[in-house]
This record gives sequence, C-alpha cells and structure tokens, in this order.
Amino acid sequence: MTNWKELDQNARDWIMEAGKKIRDSFQDELNIKTKSNRNDLVTNMDEATERYFIEKIRSTYKDHHIMGEEGFGDELSELSGVTWIIDPIDGTMNFVHQQRNFAISIGVYDGKQGVLGYIYDVVHDELYHAEKGRGAYMNDQKLPVLNEVAVEDSVIALNAQWMTTNKRIDPEVLAPLVQKVRGTRSYGSAAIEMAYIASGRLDAYISMRLAPWDFAAGKILIEEVGGVVTDLEGNELNPLNKSSLFVGKPGLHGKILNNYLKN
Amino acid sequence: MTNWKELDQNARDWIMEAGKKIRDSFQDELNIKTKSNRNDLVTNMDEATERYFIEKIRSTYKDHHIMGEEGFGDELSELSGVTWIIDPIDGTMNFVHQQRNFAISIGVYDGKQGVLGYIYDVVHDELYHAEKGRGAYMNDQKLPVLNEVAVEDSVIALNAQWMTTNKRIDPEVLAPLVQKVRGTRSYGSAAIEMAYIASGRLDAYISMRLAPWDFAAGKILIEEVGGVVTDLEGNELNPLNKSSLFVGKPGLHGKILNNYLKN
Repeated sequence: MTNWKELDQNARDWIMEAGKKIRDSFQDELNIKTKSNRNDLVTNMDEATERYFIEKIRSTYKDHHIMGEEGFGDELSELSGVTWIIDPIDGTMNFVHQQRNFAISIGVYDGKQGVLGYIYDVVHDELYHAEKGRGAYMNDQKLPVLNEVAVEDSVIALNAQWMTTNKRIDPEVLAPLVQKVRGTRSYGSAAIEMAYIASGRLDAYISMRLAPWDFAAGKILIEEVGGVVTDLEGNELNPLNKSSLFVGKPGLHGKILNNYLKN
Repeated sequence: MTNWKELDQNARDWIMEAGKKIRDSFQDELNIKTKSNRNDLVTNMDEATERYFIEKIRSTYKDHHIMGEEGFGDELSELSGVTWIIDPIDGTMNFVHQQRNFAISIGVYDGKQGVLGYIYDVVHDELYHAEKGRGAYMNDQKLPVLNEVAVEDSVIALNAQWMTTNKRIDPEVLAPLVQKVRGTRSYGSAAIEMAYIASGRLDAYISMRLAPWDFAAGKILIEEVGGVVTDLEGNELNPLNKSSLFVGKPGLHGKILNNYLKN
C-alpha cells in the first residue's frame, strides 16, 4: 500500500531542495550544451536536477517507476504501479536566457490515474500542488474552482510560431480564435502556462506538441479546479505519449473546441 | 536649471510609494470599468496612480509638463522644457487577470531628449532605471551592454495577434522571421518587454501600435545599454506620437530590419 501522505511530503521536500539548488546555480556560469535541435537547449542543471530526483525516489521507493525528460528514468510501455513523471526544468530556454519563467514539474500516477501534481515556479517560490479529489493549492492558498468566461473575454496562451506554416496545424484554424479573444500571451513553459490556467491567470492554453513530463502535473492541477484538459481534438491525454494539448476553463474549453478547433 | 539628481531621487521615491499602494490594492476588490475598447481595461488603480504622480509633480515642479495615459496630464503639441511621460500601469489586462507582468513606466524628457527612464516591475520589486549617458540599472545592479546575437539564436517578443490579418501589418512579412528565430514570447506589457530587452532576457520586441507612455522610458533604458529603438520602418520614434515599435540588440536590429521587415 502506498502511503500517499508520506509520498506527498517527500515530493515537496525534494522539490524545495532542488529549487534551492537551482537558485544557487544562478551564481555559477551555466554549462550549456545543445541537443540535436538547437531550440532544445539543455543545461547541466536539467541533468543534475533529474538525477537528484531519481536518486531520492530510487532510494526511498524501490518499486516505483520514473519517466524523466532527460532520459535517466525508465523506458515504460505501460503505466502500472506508481510512476513519477518528471520535468526537472520545464522552460529551459527561459532558464538560460531569463533566469525566470521556468518550473520543476512532477506528476505522480497510480496506474493511469494522476494522484499528485506539483509545479514549482522556482524564482517566485510558488509551489502549485494538487491531490486528486482534494483540491489544488498555490503554496498554502487554496485555488478557487475556475469560472466560465466568454471567448471574447478570454486571455489565451499560444505561441506565435503556431501562427505560421508548420507541421502540426493549419494557422488558418487558429486565426479566427486569436482574433476573437481579448488577448494572447506566450511564456515558453508549458508548466508555467498550466499553473497560470490553474490559478486563473490565463483562460486557455494551446500547444501543438508536448511530452508527458510537460503536462503530467498540470493535468492533475487543472482538473482539480474544474478545468478541462484534452488534446486538440478533444481526446483524453495519454500520459505515455507525446501529444498536442488544449486546456481551458470549463465552458470555454468546449466553446473553443467546437466553434474554432473542430472547424 | 533643472536639478536632475534631485529629480531622479524624487521620481524613485514616488515610484516606490506608488508601487506599494498598488501591491496593497491587491487586497481590495478591483473596481474595473471598460473603456471604449473592451481590450482596453482600465481600473481605479490606473487612474489613482496617475493622479498621484501628477499631484506630486505639479506641487514640486510647477513648470514641468506631463503626458499620461489616463489623460489627466497636459495636451502637448510639442516637447519643450521638462516633460514627464507616464504610464501608471502598463499592462492593465495583466494587472487585472494576473496581478503580475505589469509595470509603472515613466520617462522624463528635456525638450526632445530622453534623460531619465524608469520601469518598475511592481510585483518583482525590480526598478529598471537609466540616466542618459550614465548607464542602466536593475535596482542597484548595473546592466551590461548588450551583445550581438544571430537571428536564429534570438528570442523575440511578438504577440500572436499580429500573425493574423490585421490593420497594421501583413502577417506574411513577419512569418519568415517567426520561423527563423529560436523562440517567441509575449507578455502583454510593452514596459515589461522593453525592460526584458534592456536586461538581455529578450533579444528583440515588435509591436504594431504603441503610445508615447508605452515606450518613453524603455527607449532611454535600451539605448543606454546599446540597444536600438525605432519604429518598424527603422525611423526614430517621436515621443509625441503613437507609433509602431521595433527594439533589439545591436546588430540583430539591423539584420531583422533589412532582411525581414523591409521585405
């Protein structure tokens, strides 16, 4: 039997300690190398932070599974037992260029069911966390259930790069939505953007291609405050697969899906 | 003779006090009304903050001029003597929806020449400030002169709404740039975006339609660290007129202007 209360406390302790290491690292020079894609920067802190979590989890929970962005976890073909899905630094480009607007993102799943979700905005020292069925919090503050909002009153997150010709979506599908909403934003970190949805700072967020560690925690958080999390076709996400992502406030999600994305 | 040192100290004191009032206001409910355009939210705090600055300036500097977003300043047809150009809360939509990502922006001009620029990121308690010829600072930390960066390594701020059909620019002009750069961001506050340019967090920023109070301070800051500030055609800005805005790192600004925007 998993002791979820103890696991939750461990996860928080590890996240706070990892966050402190990251803040301390800003004093050091970052040792940056580029992965195959030059848009996909990776730093020594990404790798060190993932290794830190893996070591803590492996020494405490020998039978748990781990999926991590940096690839030091397990190769999983199914979700069974307890699985930690970890992005040590979501928003690496922001981490490198801005030293802000990045987050540690961890989702803990029991089989296919998300149980605990954490997004830690390291620089703001804001830990967004949720336990399935028990609500979502920002630090000690309970996040209110999300209200409906009209499309024309909504502020949505969407990267301008999806508005040019790309492999994932016809920009003509998105254009009427972008013209209708009150405003668009783009922060360059799916975890930060999902935390902003959960806390009501954004009303919807669209991304064309994300990995499980990008959305594993945010899904739990957003669903706990009544938000809706699907792919761009409205299908449920599979935490084992890469996917498009469309999250939004209740009501708004359905309106955008049916009146814009499905056109 | 203007005592610029004293003026600088007064400006900082007033900005810090106004910032504190704004932070305190987050406890109160915001009394929001909409201006003619529903995208242009205005709150009681915008108006109260502008009135606060105007009262301080008028009682201290009887012969100074004031241009302010909320319209409580002077109607100016030319810049002569000392003029304060004030945006009490730049990024009102963020102020209302997020309680972050907004700033107080004040530029002080001597005739047509920008002398002192302040952008105060109220929630982060970060005061970006510059005096013409004496460098730019974030709080007490001197901001380094900006380095050149290649277009393909740059992160630029640009709102997705300019990538759809609009009155200001053909999205086809921007598309090749958006596809070439490393990443795009959008924060919804020109002052914050210009402060991010001055501090090297962003490499370039494009906006199609801004008012003098949106860029008056940022222009001084960015030029003090070697950045380039023009409209979208590469012309110098006129601090009396609305304008498009294109700011960027040295070198990068010219490359984007000549290879993308002028096409």
